[in-house]
Amino acid sequence: MVADNLHYHDTTVTTEHKVTKYGHRPCVIWLTGLSGSGKSTVANVLERKLFDLSVKTHLLDGDNVRMGLNRDLGFLPHERKEGIRRVGEVANLFAQSGTVVITAFISPYAEDRQAARDACSQDFLEVFVDTPLEECEARDPKGLYQKARQGLINDFTGVSAPYECPDSDAPDTLRIDTTLMTASECAEVIIERMIKMNIIGAQ
Amino acid sequence: MVADNLHYHDTTVTTEHKVTKYGHRPCVIWLTGLSGSGKSTVANVLERKLFDLSVKTHLLDGDNVRMGLNRDLGFLPHERKEGIRRVGEVANLFAQSGTVVITAFISPYAEDRQAARDACSQDFLEVFVDTPLEECEARDPKGLYQKARQGLINDFTGVSAPYECPDSDAPDTLRIDTTLMTASECAEVIIERMIKMNIIGAQ
Repeated sequence: MVADNLHYHDTTVTTEHKVTKYGHRPCVIWLTGLSGSGKSTVANVLERKLFDLSVKTHLLDGDNVRMGLNRDLGFLPHERKEGIRRVGEVANLFAQSGTVVITAFISPYAEDRQAARDACSQDFLEVFVDTPLEECEARDPKGLYQKARQGLINDFTGVSAPYECPDSDAPDTLRIDTTLMTASECAEVIIERMIKMNIIGAQ
Repeated sequence: MVADNLHYHDTTVTTEHKVTKYGHRPCVIWLTGLSGSGKSTVANVLERKLFDLSVKTHLLDGDNVRMGLNRDLGFLPHERKEGIRRVGEVANLFAQSGTVVITAFISPYAEDRQAARDACSQDFLEVFVDTPLEECEARDPKGLYQKARQGLINDFTGVSAPYECPDSDAPDTLRIDTTLMTASECAEVIIERMIKMNIIGAQ
């Protein structure tokens, strides 16, 4: 063990080692937007396209977080804040492992999104999935807006709780409009930005 | 968007897709043992060897979890339990992403280790890094045992808090003895087991 301990630092695999091996840099692609805005759809199409480009990817969304890591949390403001904090920390762990991690959560508060960015030791791109409330409500894929309007759901973002829009002029923020583009086109815009950020090479 | 939605399920990248692309199956390698038992050393050597075999790896340990995901938690029993719960959930997320994730936490309670196993949707190998207390205390790399004996640290595993040994006869548990083997040899034993479990191919 003594000899091994002397070589401890040599044995540690760093993020840079993984960058070299995987052939791309890691980052967090943080999708934010109203319920029904298309975050999950865009996230899935984006992951598929990146995966087909041999990028190491992972998608974090409500499906794999709510019933697991965040299952002790409800929808009270401080619980939502803690939930987003954990997602930010986990996204950072994935990025440290060399992965391009895509998150798809409403994450309505600018402060919480900033905290996720601050927790991240790798590149972080905030993507505002900008779909007007009327359009989200017209789609209402899970019937949640209807329930919120009926008062059956409290603190529903866009109806009875605020959504703080990202500043889409910020250099590390991207705004995509799902009423003008298909999910595939939205994903392509994100990939173009990732190429400009030197996360992946030009295709 | 309508056309995209129709193809939603086609766009989802599953764990199985990643298995096919990466050429190995994911799993959780859960190292447990006393402070100073050599968990981190073995974990680092193991990750290096797997990485050199082109396995997608990630190492979760105190260094990257305590100051981030678990920074709201202290050392009270229910906080330690919650900390290990979160590590188990994050390990599962990494495994779902096709990664071989190695965790190195004391995780002294059998119940908490079982909960981590239960949270895991992929293969899970518990590795008991079995170093006698006297040996850990003689090594005392961080001077923690000395402080614990002086009463400067409360609830210190092995001194003033229990460590529940894994049942090393269980089929999905491995016991390694760091007093008989180097960290490199310990890592090789784990890799042999991973080959038997069909996580990676024979080298």
